Amino acid sequence: MNGHISYEYAGYLRTEKYDKEPPRRKELIVNCEKPFNAETRPDLLPRSFYVPNDLFFVRNHAPVPVLRSEEEFRLRVEGIVAYPLLLSLQDLKTKFRKHTVTAVLQCAGNRRTEMSRIKPIQGVPWLHGAAGNAVWSGALLKDVLMAAGVYPNKAEHVEFEGADLPPEEENRSGYLASIPLKKALDEDQEVLLAYEMNGEILSRDHGYPLRVIVPGFVGARSVKWLSRIICKMDSSEGFFMTKDYKYLPSSMDFGNVDWSSTPPIMNLSVQCAICDPLPDTKLSQGPYKVRGYALTGKGDHIMRVELSVNGSKDWQEAKLIKGEKIANREIPKRITAGLKDWSWVLWELVVDIKPPMVIMARAIDSACNTQPEVPLWNLRGVMNNSWHKVNILPLTSAL
Amino acid sequence: MNGHISYEYAGYLRTEKYDKEPPRRKELIVNCEKPFNAETRPDLLPRSFYVPNDLFFVRNHAPVPVLRSEEEFRLRVEGIVAYPLLLSLQDLKTKFRKHTVTAVLQCAGNRRTEMSRIKPIQGVPWLHGAAGNAVWSGALLKDVLMAAGVYPNKAEHVEFEGADLPPEEENRSGYLASIPLKKALDEDQEVLLAYEMNGEILSRDHGYPLRVIVPGFVGARSVKWLSRIICKMDSSEGFFMTKDYKYLPSSMDFGNVDWSSTPPIMNLSVQCAICDPLPDTKLSQGPYKVRGYALTGKGDHIMRVELSVNGSKDWQEAKLIKGEKIANREIPKRITAGLKDWSWVLWELVVDIKPPMVIMARAIDSACNTQPEVPLWNLRGVMNNSWHKVNILPLTSAL
Ligand SMILES: [Mo]
Ligand SMILES: [Mo]
Repeated sequence: MNGHISYEYAGYLRTEKYDKEPPRRKELIVNCEKPFNAETRPDLLPRSFYVPNDLFFVRNHAPVPVLRSEEEFRLRVEGIVAYPLLLSLQDLKTKFRKHTVTAVLQCAGNRRTEMSRIKPIQGVPWLHGAAGNAVWSGALLKDVLMAAGVYPNKAEHVEFEGADLPPEEENRSGYLASIPLKKALDEDQEVLLAYEMNGEILSRDHGYPLRVIVPGFVGARSVKWLSRIICKMDSSEGFFMTKDYKYLPSSMDFGNVDWSSTPPIMNLSVQCAICDPLPDTKLSQGPYKVRGYALTGKGDHIMRVELSVNGSKDWQEAKLIKGEKIANREIPKRITAGLKDWSWVLWELVVDIKPPMVIMARAIDSACNTQPEVPLWNLRGVMNNSWHKVNILPLTSAL
Repeated sequence: MNGHISYEYAGYLRTEKYDKEPPRRKELIVNCEKPFNAETRPDLLPRSFYVPNDLFFVRNHAPVPVLRSEEEFRLRVEGIVAYPLLLSLQDLKTKFRKHTVTAVLQCAGNRRTEMSRIKPIQGVPWLHGAAGNAVWSGALLKDVLMAAGVYPNKAEHVEFEGADLPPEEENRSGYLASIPLKKALDEDQEVLLAYEMNGEILSRDHGYPLRVIVPGFVGARSVKWLSRIICKMDSSEGFFMTKDYKYLPSSMDFGNVDWSSTPPIMNLSVQCAICDPLPDTKLSQGPYKVRGYALTGKGDHIMRVELSVNGSKDWQEAKLIKGEKIANREIPKRITAGLKDWSWVLWELVVDIKPPMVIMARAIDSACNTQPEVPLWNLRGVMNNSWHKVNILPLTSAL
């Protein structure tokens, strides 16, 4: 593109150092400073159905890009299309209908720390706070692709390029990922080019001014600082599609890994986490309201969350809290109607605490999928959706 | 309908006794004679990618209906439609394009016997042979509904009525089930009104002359002896939608069951079974080729099948055999492209047999869902997709 590389074309400064990072809340748990990776303190998550923007987990692969000015921002749409587009932010806001969707994002590495107890894993050591629910607004990717005259019989994938420059990407491209074109063109999938998060302009850590939101997919496909969209025959060859974010067989380690054996992770699997109490909390005997979240992919619903306080012998159903309106009794009807759902659910249940003890939680989704008891260890430490087990300690008397 | 009830209108005789049952192969394992419920001997399943029609599991709820004559058969399409239809078999074969799909069917109760070891369960005691793969041909339900002028903004469900008369159904209706209209109208979901199974006319046990095939859903929604289609606002109130085929919480038994708490089962969850060797087979030490099947719902693919012969400590990847053509290395590409897949996979792996031992198998699908180690017990004994564990005994020397 005239000697420019993508991020420059899109209106960004060259940003390879960490001297222009945005301000951040001290309540975040920082798992890595450079690049910045931080999760929400898990016990804060069930306090609201939507996670506040400045407490939402941040998963960066490089310094946060710096936009020269909002007016200079340009999104290119190209590849196998009849009419390549060059769109300003104003174009996206005024030439396309505004669509709003509630969707949970979860990092593929959420709960990696638990998995690494089986065998060590390289990677950001996430607890269970690398997930969050938000309401996103923007243009439907479908509408933009239709305006570009995509050739659905020739293209099969839509690649996204971010303006960030992760060191792992070759040829100094920005962060790359792709999704199937079929998903992008299906209006029910609600894939967005989002410029708002919870009613506010996107913050720099969350992709200002534009990010993709791919409901039901792992966060790694919801590319931030979106600078370019390419309609292609093949899926992205980017590092984070081909050499990372794969759910490899447990037999593979860095010595024998065959990256081509396994497709890139796309969909979220059924997941559940206990947020309050935190692991190893000291509690006195008596009733305690246990709270957490559950989520799944494919537009499926969380059908049920169950807790056990006697080592998986008996399971009690938690109360599901879905948005402000929807109680347990309405969920079966929505499931039966086959409506898609991209949101998490919050849940709560008062249990009898008798420390020392373990509280276990698991979810069952509307496709009748449920979670394994133990993590399926894999080299990249991704997609840990094992039963969540939280250890509770007794209040020790003063020595 | 002029005093007729549905099955008579559709061309069937009143069939309430078991004196006109079809002939059946003696190789089937019969779990119930009246109504006839029989499964394929599990070790026969991996012998071919498509299960032969006369060895395919049969799940009946009543006597097999008797059609007066093929010429008299009529399918009614009615409810919230502009043009109610009355279609002969010839109409279905000549006025609508013929569509063919490979799809696995699985009874929701497959592997109930294993689950009932946790706590007894009423119901047909299926082993792991109540699943089978076949190629189905017929008219797309979508095309028929479009011809009837369905109102997609008014109707939300499509109900199917079979000509069989299960005693559980009230008012002597035929067997009833419904699916979301969205599923029916989505051509990628390939919901069929099938008149052929593996290239042959449907046999009487499999729904002659017409059955619904709902790819990715439990068998109970693929209504046999289809006599009527009704477009409705609400999902079917039939017994097998409201009082059975529900994945209830483990805390519910016949004393405290709340049927409205839980939606009817629709989707298949990720499943895997060891077919050869059979449980409790006596084998000598040495290599043995273990074989089985794996399947999942939602159009997802089986990404991987893993076996353990050391009590879940280590897992080895089985070789996937998908149709005649597709080897393991091609599967990642098809998954990445987001293509839908309604078929099972067969798999095999040579393992070292050292009896006594347990062989365990589990699958991971392309949405990264996997199986729980232990069944989630439920009142109706449905959706057991726990790790399959097969006990192998030593060859005892002659006493
Ligand atoms: Mo991620
Ligand atoms: Mo069934």
